[in-house]
Amino acid sequence: MTMGLCKKNLPVRGKYKDISEKKCYREDGHEGECKEFPYLSDLSVSHPRVTNKIKRDATKTTGAAWKSEDAGPNRIDRWVMLQSDDVLKNYGLDMVALKPGVVAKLREKAATYDDCMDVAARLTLLAYQMPDAPPCPADTRTYLESRFSPMVEGSTTCIVCKEPLSFSLFENAQRGKAEIETAHSNPREHNQNNVGFAHRECNIAQGNKTVEEFYGWISGILDRIDRT
Amino acid sequence: MTMGLCKKNLPVRGKYKDISEKKCYREDGHEGECKEFPYLSDLSVSHPRVTNKIKRDATKTTGAAWKSEDAGPNRIDRWVMLQSDDVLKNYGLDMVALKPGVVAKLREKAATYDDCMDVAARLTLLAYQMPDAPPCPADTRTYLESRFSPMVEGSTTCIVCKEPLSFSLFENAQRGKAEIETAHSNPREHNQNNVGFAHRECNIAQGNKTVEEFYGWISGILDRIDRT
Repeated sequence: MTMGLCKKNLPVRGKYKDISEKKCYREDGHEGECKEFPYLSDLSVSHPRVTNKIKRDATKTTGAAWKSEDAGPNRIDRWVMLQSDDVLKNYGLDMVALKPGVVAKLREKAATYDDCMDVAARLTLLAYQMPDAPPCPADTRTYLESRFSPMVEGSTTCIVCKEPLSFSLFENAQRGKAEIETAHSNPREHNQNNVGFAHRECNIAQGNKTVEEFYGWISGILDRIDRT
Repeated sequence: MTMGLCKKNLPVRGKYKDISEKKCYREDGHEGECKEFPYLSDLSVSHPRVTNKIKRDATKTTGAAWKSEDAGPNRIDRWVMLQSDDVLKNYGLDMVALKPGVVAKLREKAATYDDCMDVAARLTLLAYQMPDAPPCPADTRTYLESRFSPMVEGSTTCIVCKEPLSFSLFENAQRGKAEIETAHSNPREHNQNNVGFAHRECNIAQGNKTVEEFYGWISGILDRIDRT
């Protein structure tokens, strides 16, 4: 079932290029040019904002909402955060100068390049499986199904509340905040088995708990108010 | 049971003084000087931060965390927010220039002066009823009991999760955020029957829902994951 992938190294640009990587994720032995996100070619045309969100959430740390000396860098590749303080200092990022809370938050978001790329593909599958998602082009469907599992239309639910998630919520924004967020069953891990989408309010309610911890917590609350 | 209160008008200062008020909340016919918060005299000496939090949360809107043209005023008396846009404009506060989300948030926090003062007294009672609260001085106890109900030591729980709330959490601060927050059973009302304290994470999880709506919501989640 699992497809072989090209994984040819592609040129990396930017400040952190020596400690970064970029690979082709087309199928092994493909014809034509290498591509990092081949399965997003169509969505990037029809829904560029959703596409950018998937790429960003899969590969970047969340950044500080404001700019200040100790607030930390805004959106940095998650795999860069795997490097030691010493290495990062060579690239102009002085982790020791940041607030401990900021450092903890950044380090918590660290993930390998390969895990991030798996996450991006998995999020794309989940987006296409939303009840009102745009139709998935045949080649993308074949690609995603051979990397994961047969696509079940309309099957994507919020990983917290388990209600179906509408694709249209990607476009809705209230006070500048998207109503769908990329979420993690365990907020301290970032890999394909651990990610999904959640309603913004569900993701906020989950907080730093794992989804299992969250269920245990709310179950305890209902026990105390004698509602179960 | 209910005590008569002096309610003599006290001098008001500041930018909004013509649309504000301030009264004496000592018992009717008291001797000595009038006081707005007589029941906080002791706590203000032993626990000034807790005292300031109670006064602030009872009487002020929450403000913008940052400074910008359209972010709105930082911490304004809740009763000032009962005034019309036209009146507020005379006081240099141009509501129309603010983002709709900011206006909604400010207006939602509006409450009468009397309700705010009732809230402050009730929060003080609840703080003294926390398991590890400092002992309540006899005169304050008499005062609060005659305004509310007999004090039951150790009875204050988080209004969301119903676990006992430790007074010590007032002093703990993680990343600059207190671990106890003033909370509302219905986030859109601010009166003595509706306020209490909650763990920060519980208050965040409750979000814009009433506590009853929150219980209904989490109950639905547990039904869907088949845990109840």
